[in-house]
Amino acid sequence: MTFFTHHVNTRKQTEFVNITSEVKKSVADSGIKEGICVVYIPHTTAAVTINEAADPDVVTDIIKEVNKIIPLNDNYKHMEGNSAAHIKSSLFGISTQIPVKNGNLTLGTWQGIFFCEFDGARHRTFHVRILGNSE
Amino acid sequence: MTFFTHHVNTRKQTEFVNITSEVKKSVADSGIKEGICVVYIPHTTAAVTINEAADPDVVTDIIKEVNKIIPLNDNYKHMEGNSAAHIKSSLFGISTQIPVKNGNLTLGTWQGIFFCEFDGARHRTFHVRILGNSE
Amino acid sequence: MTFFTHHVNTRKQTEFVNITSEVKKSVADSGIKEGICVVYIPHTTAAVTINEAADPDVVTDIIKEVNKIIPLNDNYKHMEGNSAAHIKSSLFGISTQIPVKNGNLTLGTWQGIFFCEFDGARHRTFHVRILGNSE
Repeated sequence: MTFFTHHVNTRKQTEFVNITSEVKKSVADSGIKEGICVVYIPHTTAAVTINEAADPDVVTDIIKEVNKIIPLNDNYKHMEGNSAAHIKSSLFGISTQIPVKNGNLTLGTWQGIFFCEFDGARHRTFHVRILGNSE
Repeated sequence: MTFFTHHVNTRKQTEFVNITSEVKKSVADSGIKEGICVVYIPHTTAAVTINEAADPDVVTDIIKEVNKIIPLNDNYKHMEGNSAAHIKSSLFGISTQIPVKNGNLTLGTWQGIFFCEFDGARHRTFHVRILGNSE
Repeated sequence: MTFFTHHVNTRKQTEFVNITSEVKKSVADSGIKEGICVVYIPHTTAAVTINEAADPDVVTDIIKEVNKIIPLNDNYKHMEGNSAAHIKSSLFGISTQIPVKNGNLTLGTWQGIFFCEFDGARHRTFHVRILGNSE
């Protein structure tokens, strides 16, 4: 199997959840040795990003600055009141891909994969598709 | 065939055109059942994004807020006068990918695929590449 | 071989380095004729983007405007002082993909691939993975 669906329960309005271990497990379970791994978020008020996973202050700074650039309230037209979350979703992107080499993700030393919640708390889903050769 | 080129005629300076049905048709025509679908924009003042396709106010809010963050005129150096469009193109991104499962895109309930015009109206092109297995 | 690692020596704090020729060479060396090419940056204060490579003023405008939107100093918490670079990395993205057709990237007329340095000068790395068929 090369397609996996995972679940995340977010706990805050805006929160980045480290999902690196779930993605790594899917790569291992796929048996793919040489290829790519796609992480896909099927939501419109969430995103995926790859950034520093060592110092949690980095994620804190990203969230704070982005909330300053795209304010939660700014005379948006959309009635649900979560337009800022939709805008952030498009700017961060809902999909990313990482090469797989010798059965491992080619993540850099400081990189972790984050599920970005912009309209939580919610029960969320993400997909992992691995493509390539098992030898 | 697993590579398709589509055309869009945009009608405004900034406009998001829903291209979900064209992408879905390419996936069906490819015969690929398990894999990924890449949407690629060969332009430098346009982009592709996946966001809510149900309420058109979401796209209206995205366009309005992004025009506020990246003003159309801001003492840009580039003589053609469309630097804001180039900046938006890089922030939204000119390429995205969606897993294909059982022959279908794994789009979420509210997700649609949009061609983002930032320097229209123009005659535009986008490519769809599907990769994977037909069984 | 369908996986390649390249190196870039950046010379400024913020700088976009055109890496199109390195990526094209990897595609040629892979022998893949129909597929996709993934460019991946294993850093958290850099990114990759595809934008106009003809007029250097475009890149100048992108860098200037983005530095205005995300200031280098803004009471960030992260002690290393490079939070702005991390934020830009997430907004531009550390990975992109381009279809390969007849052995060539389907880049548009004006498109070039840029390594985006946001915390230089440094010795940097990027990966290229090509996936598809050699016939």
